[in-house]
Amino acid sequence: MPRIAYFGPQGTFTEQAALRFGSDLVPAETIPLAVAAVRSGETEFACVPIENSVEGAVPATLDVLIRDTPVVAVAETVLDVRFSVLVRPGTSSISTVASHPHALAQTREWVAANLPGATSIATSSTAAAAAAVERGEFDAAVTAPVAINHYELDEYATDVLDVADARTRFLLLRQPGELPQPTGADRTSVVVTTPNRVGVLSELLTELALRGINLTGLESRPTKGKLGTYRFYIDVEGHIAEPRIGDALAALHRHSHEIRFLGSFPKADQEPAEAHNDEFAAAATWVDAVRKGERG
Amino acid sequence: MPRIAYFGPQGTFTEQAALRFGSDLVPAETIPLAVAAVRSGETEFACVPIENSVEGAVPATLDVLIRDTPVVAVAETVLDVRFSVLVRPGTSSISTVASHPHALAQTREWVAANLPGATSIATSSTAAAAAAVERGEFDAAVTAPVAINHYELDEYATDVLDVADARTRFLLLRQPGELPQPTGADRTSVVVTTPNRVGVLSELLTELALRGINLTGLESRPTKGKLGTYRFYIDVEGHIAEPRIGDALAALHRHSHEIRFLGSFPKADQEPAEAHNDEFAAAATWVDAVRKGERG
Repeated sequence: MPRIAYFGPQGTFTEQAALRFGSDLVPAETIPLAVAAVRSGETEFACVPIENSVEGAVPATLDVLIRDTPVVAVAETVLDVRFSVLVRPGTSSISTVASHPHALAQTREWVAANLPGATSIATSSTAAAAAAVERGEFDAAVTAPVAINHYELDEYATDVLDVADARTRFLLLRQPGELPQPTGADRTSVVVTTPNRVGVLSELLTELALRGINLTGLESRPTKGKLGTYRFYIDVEGHIAEPRIGDALAALHRHSHEIRFLGSFPKADQEPAEAHNDEFAAAATWVDAVRKGERG
Repeated sequence: MPRIAYFGPQGTFTEQAALRFGSDLVPAETIPLAVAAVRSGETEFACVPIENSVEGAVPATLDVLIRDTPVVAVAETVLDVRFSVLVRPGTSSISTVASHPHALAQTREWVAANLPGATSIATSSTAAAAAAVERGEFDAAVTAPVAINHYELDEYATDVLDVADARTRFLLLRQPGELPQPTGADRTSVVVTTPNRVGVLSELLTELALRGINLTGLESRPTKGKLGTYRFYIDVEGHIAEPRIGDALAALHRHSHEIRFLGSFPKADQEPAEAHNDEFAAAATWVDAVRKGERG
């Protein structure tokens, strides 16, 4: 059973996501430490959040993917963000509510409406809040649903959130090696470092568009310490094993200072992508034949 | 003296930014309420945060710019994010630290290192934390530096932050009217709604690149309630009064379902942009002359 390091501690949303990939889970204190476990070989996999539909990309994950030795994503999963409010058994009144600052921010209206007058206490994680409630330090914790498995607490409320339809996407990372097989509904992710001049992003995206490739994600980040360069995280539909995707990534390589492959893996939504691969195969066959003098 | 609504309360970073634009300031409880004050004519201007170098774009501001009647930016300013830690005069030990959840998240390491064992309390704003400390409810507040002007508190520490070089950009918004004069170092901002098909973003950026226009910002947001459409917030260098920018925005209009102008205004960094406007003028003169039969 392969071990999976995840952005912990136990009882967080990332544990909830990691459970979809396996059961031998190792909590890490930060996103960089979870990925470091894979780089050092301490675990085979790491599970980290990559983007949230409300807050956007997760900067800590973007930064760790470009640093040090490469790691690649081999799977993704998408989790609906729904908090639970946990209390000690027998709790009748709630005057303090503890959680991670981001979870407090995402449930502020719910707490104001349902626990008026309660003081909000910030903790280092949603799980740390649950532990503190178990110890009797605070009355209630706002946590991931999975936290109920780890603490002697009761559910005071579930499905708690101010914004409907919040979702987080998580990646399963590994050291480079054999790629997952193409499924016809895949995503490919790269990070490209380019000179900062007029039109460079237009060139990258035109290379994709000319090949009929659907862009599913784009994040730009300034490169620290290298003035005048820019970094783009690019997600497209398709698998690098497909001719059109390999061809497009080769084109991005020609336009960039540096390119790093971050993975080709099945999309969580399993919606098939248009391929156009026959056109690429026919075109390559034609060029080969012309070069051999067999065709005009 | 024009009145400026800002995302308050008093003592926040947005007040600190708004003070650069004027002194007759009116706090609003949320970003939508600050912009609503401009739409209703209650104030002439509104000052709101638009992006942060660590957290990225401010979703609440992006969403309010596309809703209801148009408002346009007429100025921007960039603020270094540096927190102060405020305490009541004579405070000798600190066991509770209060602030907005985002400020607590951005100063967590500093608090752990400098105030070990202190409990972090989440409040609705950094200024609400200062008010609570003034009332004696908590020992210390993590706030914007400007909060010292509004509360009977002392600075326990200043320039507090975990991440160096964090900056926030703010916009000064107004109802549509006469535009600011071009300065040669301007930014133009639009939001474009497009069909969600392969290559559409490539088309938009190619229209800019072909005209030598520098893209300075790009944010994509799904459009709620309209399946199959996408929304792009696009910032470029230049002023809509310049031929090349007017020409490019007309091209974006042709590619989009909907386009909304969000302003042309002087850039905070005042770095001049390359113009190429002479080429546009010469080309238009040539086409005119040919149409009149005066040139070949």
